Amino acid sequence: MSQTRQLHLNAFLRNVGQHEAAWRLPETRVASVTDIDHYRNLAAIAERGKLDAIFFADHPVLKDRAQDRPWDALDPFTLIAALSGVTSNIGLVATASTTYNDPYGLARRFATLDHVSKGRAAWNVVTTANAAAAANFSLGHHPNPDARYERAAEFLEVANALWDSWDDDAIVGDKEGGTFVHPEGIHRLDHHGKHFEVAGPLEVPRSPQGRPVVFQAGSSEPGKELAARFAEAIFTAQPAIGDAQAFYADVKARVQRYGRDPEKVLILPGLSFFIGGTEEEAHRLQNTFEDLTLPTYGLAQLKRVTGIDYSDHALDDVVRVPARGEVASDLKSRHDLVHRLTSTETITLRQLLRRLSAGRGHRIAAGTPDQIADTIVEWFENAAADGFNLIPPALPTSLETFVDHVVPILQHRGVFRTDYEGTTLREHLGLERPNITRASRAYVDAAE
Amino acid sequence: MSQTRQLHLNAFLRNVGQHEAAWRLPETRVASVTDIDHYRNLAAIAERGKLDAIFFADHPVLKDRAQDRPWDALDPFTLIAALSGVTSNIGLVATASTTYNDPYGLARRFATLDHVSKGRAAWNVVTTANAAAAANFSLGHHPNPDARYERAAEFLEVANALWDSWDDDAIVGDKEGGTFVHPEGIHRLDHHGKHFEVAGPLEVPRSPQGRPVVFQAGSSEPGKELAARFAEAIFTAQPAIGDAQAFYADVKARVQRYGRDPEKVLILPGLSFFIGGTEEEAHRLQNTFEDLTLPTYGLAQLKRVTGIDYSDHALDDVVRVPARGEVASDLKSRHDLVHRLTSTETITLRQLLRRLSAGRGHRIAAGTPDQIADTIVEWFENAAADGFNLIPPALPTSLETFVDHVVPILQHRGVFRTDYEGTTLREHLGLERPNITRASRAYVDAAE
Repeated sequence: MSQTRQLHLNAFLRNVGQHEAAWRLPETRVASVTDIDHYRNLAAIAERGKLDAIFFADHPVLKDRAQDRPWDALDPFTLIAALSGVTSNIGLVATASTTYNDPYGLARRFATLDHVSKGRAAWNVVTTANAAAAANFSLGHHPNPDARYERAAEFLEVANALWDSWDDDAIVGDKEGGTFVHPEGIHRLDHHGKHFEVAGPLEVPRSPQGRPVVFQAGSSEPGKELAARFAEAIFTAQPAIGDAQAFYADVKARVQRYGRDPEKVLILPGLSFFIGGTEEEAHRLQNTFEDLTLPTYGLAQLKRVTGIDYSDHALDDVVRVPARGEVASDLKSRHDLVHRLTSTETITLRQLLRRLSAGRGHRIAAGTPDQIADTIVEWFENAAADGFNLIPPALPTSLETFVDHVVPILQHRGVFRTDYEGTTLREHLGLERPNITRASRAYVDAAE
Repeated sequence: MSQTRQLHLNAFLRNVGQHEAAWRLPETRVASVTDIDHYRNLAAIAERGKLDAIFFADHPVLKDRAQDRPWDALDPFTLIAALSGVTSNIGLVATASTTYNDPYGLARRFATLDHVSKGRAAWNVVTTANAAAAANFSLGHHPNPDARYERAAEFLEVANALWDSWDDDAIVGDKEGGTFVHPEGIHRLDHHGKHFEVAGPLEVPRSPQGRPVVFQAGSSEPGKELAARFAEAIFTAQPAIGDAQAFYADVKARVQRYGRDPEKVLILPGLSFFIGGTEEEAHRLQNTFEDLTLPTYGLAQLKRVTGIDYSDHALDDVVRVPARGEVASDLKSRHDLVHRLTSTETITLRQLLRRLSAGRGHRIAAGTPDQIADTIVEWFENAAADGFNLIPPALPTSLETFVDHVVPILQHRGVFRTDYEGTTLREHLGLERPNITRASRAYVDAAE
């Protein structure tokens, strides 16, 4: 592995693109939303660009206003499992909720994925912000953030212990002596917690990466605490370098307080982009997207984030979203961003909806390939980011443009790999294979 | 599709083979248990043989006596998802438990698999017999069979309703008019049952097969009832043609009582086999396996099935397993089989353990390729089976032998396809794409 600090780039792949109007572009195939060939193509482009990983969101409930735009219609875990067979190097990150899964089943699936992908699996831990999900999972109400994060922490403790329940050398395979497994190499958990009772061991032997890589997304106070304790990479929405630097310093300090190495916890803000041959061309491209937005959809999203219905507000009147606290919101950090934006700029409702259409809080860059690379390097070299989750506004086109025009510049500047140096996602990310930590008794006690 | 009745053949693929001693054969690679390349090779062999599907078991808990033999160490759903990308025609069947999953999450994963495999997904429904699983899922005790099957029936109702929650033509993709989905084409469930509360709709649009194919395994009284109501194919252990005929007649009659077409519910007993150039060679092969069995393992399995510990019983003394009722058992039909075997034959404990080593209740055939084909055709033509779940004793070797030597005979006799006639598993199995049945209200009511 190289000694200089290396930039990390994931592709965050949302159906036909992050921009809410991407589907209305003439070149977009709407059938791509459920077409595995589309996702195979995206994975191939990302792998050609030597990106660290492809990354998928999770929505365990149909989003509202499905009539207005595509959504992530496929289960992300199933999708990355399918893509594992047709890729060879790129990391595979699926988001999954600790609120709407059980730790044994989920740990088992991710450990299996780590085996079948030969060490490229990662789990992006979320607690699910959308309260409507509860109604799909026999829960009378969606738990509040504190309850969700408490469960998430115990969930991660159990998952880590399950992944550590097998010694690396437990399988002996002694045909002559008739011993397949060295039984002292398998360990029970006997976890008895507030949320879970899990005996273990996992039936999946220790996987190539030891444990799948743990990503975390969610930048609230309890989200940052969870990340500092457990995450190895953090996906966050930061609209400007100042915010990103504050977040970076805050989280790295928390990581250190938990006795962990801040260099082994990567901070990866989202970055959406409009790339043109000239700056003007890039802005024209962004306008093309924004001209296709549907106000009905933008208003519904704004209401979801702020709790306020602006549908009676004239589109060309100035809007000022009040600070949180005055209104209910399940997406606090998103609300704060919108509040700040409308407080520091004089902006009409129409302009706000256009502004939010590409990213809803993520950094959006429009410019030439060199300018996009400048932004990336500026954040990377000034303690704002260890890399980015790239959020292409339209797929496959925006991802192709990035890979073909921006990646070569980053490679030329010496901050990004020209080829994969390892075969596992941990190797791409510069993360060590975790040691086994356990205090549990050997499985043999129970088996005999 | 051809008009004559066609035989159906799946490959039931258990790690390095069904036979408990397969791993001790000189040619077996013990590392295959967790090696995706092994399973890719098996899938390719099965697809070369034009089999209907590959089929994987589910064990949400480590089996006891792991030290004595390999087990199915990988999550079967993740495994078939990974294999979907490297196969093109063969069906993909994963077993999953209704006791240790939730219906929304599972329906979502299988619907996604049906999309990414382009119509080749099937779910083998089980309720999990192994009581030890409860301790991995925060359940104080493993529910009894009646409770498990009651939950399974409601689980299947919910899954079917979720798969039916989208009209086939719901996605409009009208770029000009700005309508992505026709909202009247999406339907809520608002299911309120004893075990589950599920609002729906699924966020996955209707999949290529309409619904994944539903298999069922479990031949107890409630198991047969569940199969008659919901299953489209049934995997069962039948040691002899007479038993199989009785089971076949019984289940087909139950299917009819539920108002379903018995021809659209396929009965597929397990078939394990030892194939040789001569009958003697086949028996020598079987002996080679049996000579490698470990009595400790066989005794543990016998105890699991019958509840009786025979470890003090001399291996060369005659054994007679009492009828069920006198002892506890969580595997009733398996117990009955062992009881019958030891009642109708004079058999030593050693002979019994050897006999059970290959299949534990499944039909075991040893002979030439022609003799194996004879058995298959005899069952197929005499109302004992619509096909078989082939259970190769060692992998990949036994599967290769079957595909290269038995399949051509079945093709020559005109009972088995020489090539795939369709691209979906439903087409291979001669099952129709299900119509949507629902009484639920349109999702648009809630979305607006």
